[in-house]
Amino acid sequence: MRVVVPFAPERPKTRLAPVLDEAGRVAFARTMLDDVLSVLSTLDRERGVPVDPLVLSTASVDCGAPVTVDDRQLTEAVNDYLPTSDGDDPVAVVMADLALVTPAALEGLFEPDADVVIAPGRGGGTNALVVRDPDFRVDYHGASVRDHRDIAREAGLSVAHVDSFRLATDVDEPADLVEVLLHGTGEAATWLREAGFSVVATDGRVDVERNSG
Amino acid sequence: MRVVVPFAPERPKTRLAPVLDEAGRVAFARTMLDDVLSVLSTLDRERGVPVDPLVLSTASVDCGAPVTVDDRQLTEAVNDYLPTSDGDDPVAVVMADLALVTPAALEGLFEPDADVVIAPGRGGGTNALVVRDPDFRVDYHGASVRDHRDIAREAGLSVAHVDSFRLATDVDEPADLVEVLLHGTGEAATWLREAGFSVVATDGRVDVERNSG
Repeated sequence: MRVVVPFAPERPKTRLAPVLDEAGRVAFARTMLDDVLSVLSTLDRERGVPVDPLVLSTASVDCGAPVTVDDRQLTEAVNDYLPTSDGDDPVAVVMADLALVTPAALEGLFEPDADVVIAPGRGGGTNALVVRDPDFRVDYHGASVRDHRDIAREAGLSVAHVDSFRLATDVDEPADLVEVLLHGTGEAATWLREAGFSVVATDGRVDVERNSG
Repeated sequence: MRVVVPFAPERPKTRLAPVLDEAGRVAFARTMLDDVLSVLSTLDRERGVPVDPLVLSTASVDCGAPVTVDDRQLTEAVNDYLPTSDGDDPVAVVMADLALVTPAALEGLFEPDADVVIAPGRGGGTNALVVRDPDFRVDYHGASVRDHRDIAREAGLSVAHVDSFRLATDVDEPADLVEVLLHGTGEAATWLREAGFSVVATDGRVDVERNSG
């Protein structure tokens, strides 16, 4: 499976500014990318799922997979890498901030035999996608999960949804760090712990706190 | 499968107060309960999964399943319904505000052959659970998903996790209504639409808005 991983190394994750300075956000975003690439590599090496990764980055980045620099908007850039003719190999698009991703979660994404497979993200996003038909094009603006269903339906394509909390959890806001600390199995969780973050439960609610010590 | 559904009919869902008045919150919470019970009934009638539901309610409620009124705290009340001896039938605990639940999602919960099966909720909660061993007890206070893992480990029990966005999504806050509108397949989604709620996408983010017209 060709897997495109969009990544923006410059000024990433601005909504984490209340808890991480810019250098921290850059390093943490990069760690999440590494986790996603590591899971793809595990699928390929250990699970017999051939994976051909491509990091589609808005700026140069040195990482464990081939990189193409493309500074266009996400939608335009991704659309250039989708199948263009019947018979083209399918293409998956997996976001670089899925810090809970596991090989099993991605296997669940690759499995359904539909023209388009959608893994919804929280808040209306599309965190991962498989496209098997050249008539499909992405549109990541707004409630993209709804738009992607509409685009597929209008093109007469079959759609499958993947029900995965791990794929639904992209990391944008401080509250999302709770999920990484509780459920992450990769370096991003380790990075947060080493940066002093931990889960605190106060009067029934759960949040992160950071010890600078 | 014995399925306990905890429910609090009085003053429910206070965090929805910014978008729903108390009468609306009472009605909406009740609609979500009905959706959960309807999915359980579908499992039993159409999918060959025997389900024996019990609504564990803090006050009297008239609904499509047997009800036991128990006004203790959630943890204490639920613990009284878990298996007490080896050989007791397993018990599932499924929250009443899982407005995205489907028969397939609950089948995924019932399937793993572990002493304890956990479906994590967002923010550290435990939205659904199967208990097959009398040595396990719940503790819903705080980051319960972590506590439940610890309780199981200390008792030497096997634990399986279910990776489901539908089970991870409980409905507590206005932002959660986006998920119901985009992914709900039951009456709760219909109720919200009829109450004037819709998904709006503005400058890349997604929210709900309500037309009172």
